[in-house]
Amino acid sequence: MHHDPTSELPDDLMTGLADLGVHVGLNLQPGQDLVMTTPLGALPLARAITAAAYRAGAGLVTPLINDPAMTLARYQNARADSFDRAPGWLYDGIAQAFDDGAARLALVGDDPMLLAGQDAALVARANRANATAYRPALAAISGFAINWSIIACPSAAWAARIFPDLAPDDALAKLAAAIRMTARLDHADPVAAWAAHNRNLAERCAMLNAARFDALRFRGPGTDLRVGLAQGHLWQGGAAQAKNGVTCNPNIPTEEVFTTPDAARVDGHVRATKPLSHQGSLIEEIEMQFEGGRAVAARAARGQDVLREMLATDTGAARLGEVALVPHSSPVSQSGLLYFNTLFDENAASHIAMGQCYASCLEGGDRLTKDEIAARGGNESLIHVDWMIGSGQMDVDGLDADGQEHPLMRGGEWV
Amino acid sequence: MHHDPTSELPDDLMTGLADLGVHVGLNLQPGQDLVMTTPLGALPLARAITAAAYRAGAGLVTPLINDPAMTLARYQNARADSFDRAPGWLYDGIAQAFDDGAARLALVGDDPMLLAGQDAALVARANRANATAYRPALAAISGFAINWSIIACPSAAWAARIFPDLAPDDALAKLAAAIRMTARLDHADPVAAWAAHNRNLAERCAMLNAARFDALRFRGPGTDLRVGLAQGHLWQGGAAQAKNGVTCNPNIPTEEVFTTPDAARVDGHVRATKPLSHQGSLIEEIEMQFEGGRAVAARAARGQDVLREMLATDTGAARLGEVALVPHSSPVSQSGLLYFNTLFDENAASHIAMGQCYASCLEGGDRLTKDEIAARGGNESLIHVDWMIGSGQMDVDGLDADGQEHPLMRGGEWV
Repeated sequence: MHHDPTSELPDDLMTGLADLGVHVGLNLQPGQDLVMTTPLGALPLARAITAAAYRAGAGLVTPLINDPAMTLARYQNARADSFDRAPGWLYDGIAQAFDDGAARLALVGDDPMLLAGQDAALVARANRANATAYRPALAAISGFAINWSIIACPSAAWAARIFPDLAPDDALAKLAAAIRMTARLDHADPVAAWAAHNRNLAERCAMLNAARFDALRFRGPGTDLRVGLAQGHLWQGGAAQAKNGVTCNPNIPTEEVFTTPDAARVDGHVRATKPLSHQGSLIEEIEMQFEGGRAVAARAARGQDVLREMLATDTGAARLGEVALVPHSSPVSQSGLLYFNTLFDENAASHIAMGQCYASCLEGGDRLTKDEIAARGGNESLIHVDWMIGSGQMDVDGLDADGQEHPLMRGGEWV
Repeated sequence: MHHDPTSELPDDLMTGLADLGVHVGLNLQPGQDLVMTTPLGALPLARAITAAAYRAGAGLVTPLINDPAMTLARYQNARADSFDRAPGWLYDGIAQAFDDGAARLALVGDDPMLLAGQDAALVARANRANATAYRPALAAISGFAINWSIIACPSAAWAARIFPDLAPDDALAKLAAAIRMTARLDHADPVAAWAAHNRNLAERCAMLNAARFDALRFRGPGTDLRVGLAQGHLWQGGAAQAKNGVTCNPNIPTEEVFTTPDAARVDGHVRATKPLSHQGSLIEEIEMQFEGGRAVAARAARGQDVLREMLATDTGAARLGEVALVPHSSPVSQSGLLYFNTLFDENAASHIAMGQCYASCLEGGDRLTKDEIAARGGNESLIHVDWMIGSGQMDVDGLDADGQEHPLMRGGEWV
């Protein structure tokens, strides 16, 4: 007898997440098409979202379903010389759909450790080929040409990674409860709760943008890192208005305010406060040394080969593309779980990201050329990988142009 | 407890069908990419094929998974004015993949009656929009620019339609056995059995091509139909060589020899010998009257609205694009089942098809323009719908240029 625990997910959680994804995450417009990527494990939510999107007047919902078993079948059977291939025709098609006005929803719900046992060099090659082919579509997303969002569905495979000692149904129920709480579905009016949360994040950004700090300094156990901020950097967080005029919430949950660092002005050492689940592998106890913006040394207690492959992706992969502040009291942090997924884990702690910057975090970023973005200090790379450096012991200061320190966070909380 | 009977499919059937699909159906070449469409219910076979394709040296296998629940969610929730939309960006991408050399495999395994309860006018509009958007990709398939194939996976939903009175596991086991037999997997060496079968079909085609009949005449209960054959028509069946040089078996199973009729020279009346499962609806007891090639009257005891929507798709939808001869003793016919799917049902009986003709069934067809195809009698339409007219009581004669009748089939069997 085969028992599929995902059939036990409560209907009200699926409809609640679906309505949140469609109305708060995407703010899908009447007549707008939707391209939705979903792992097989998130099918219950993908179905609820399809129904909710059509109820909201969607034009056409096109699901692209990813089956982890077929992904594994490639690693187990394909010739090594085939791992530099990617379905460019599919990614170009998705970019075309965005050009034509479609919104984009990405569902999360896979086993985050799917590729843990595979050859890290092959995984890196496949990822690099995919990232290269995906560039035109990703440009529409990271440049906010369209409204987009990411939201998660509890799945048995994911829950088993978070709660390896629990029975499958219990693990799934616990993950479902955590997703309900961090998505603010435990509020009487979740949509109103998200509006209030978005206002709080906007106020925090306004304060930081008014301060116009030259750099941030992070201090905690194993960490003393100075992160220069890009010239004309903008802090962002919560809801964002896309260039198509639609205000969306790109991440559900989200607790961060973030901006673009200066890729040439990062110095010091930094220690990760949580493991990093990177494309199917777990990287634990990361420590990095930065000089002149570049990671000149990188170690990890586990997954060091994956970390080094990642940093070697291209010249920008060893420099920062994002710095983000998250209070230690955030609901995701308070859930006390390691989700093995950036959508959640980055909202449990302040973090930095290796790789591509967000041009939208620069003044006039929409109209800047690549060279202008680089001149401001913005980084360019095929990758964008967040890793967590915040904790209840982290102090953060803003440094003004004179180098004077202004306390921003103490013990992981806003001052 | 949710019980998923597809987990009970025998492994040897999945690997047998997968090897057949990859090596006989597609004849997939080392390094060749593969675009594979599959319904969710055929996932066990899709996974086995992914593994078999990579073992055979495939470049990249890109699965496109269709979820019937999301399809239904559209009909149940979408605004009526959205049913003329289709994912052109996805179909254009698939056409691009074919241009770049990818092979194409379509898996069958859906509930064939999925859309039976939906508004026939909406189904027809969605189908028309899809068919229009799919044209560039379909041209590569019907024009044999690339090697392609269709193969079926037993599924619980499909089995339940064929065996409504059996328990789910029993129904699935019976469908699995029928698919094993009709795919010739019950032979000691299935690949050799297919080679012999392909030789038999090729000999039958050679005989018919040498005879150069002007028309065929079908006579049976409720039927006296004269089907003119296109000028320079070619009979085909079994394996086919695509323009990329690869010989493939487009259908598994296949028992037919077929050619292109003259769209202006079909006269008489004809009665269906099996129900037609058309895009989710069942059309039963079809009777049609033809004059000058056009269906001037069409009736059905059930599904008449679907039939009429289909015939009204465009001007070519009420004319013939294919005529095919299948002996009543074919394995599919001998299984005694109605599969509600053309891949099987068309191989149980001689049949005709409304709509688009195969240019490859015309001499020099690869190089003919649309106008030249039309001048030969070849039909053009967005649709191509086969329906069964053969039986154990069907007589077929070939008519030569002088109108003289030459017996081809008596009582449903080759003379």
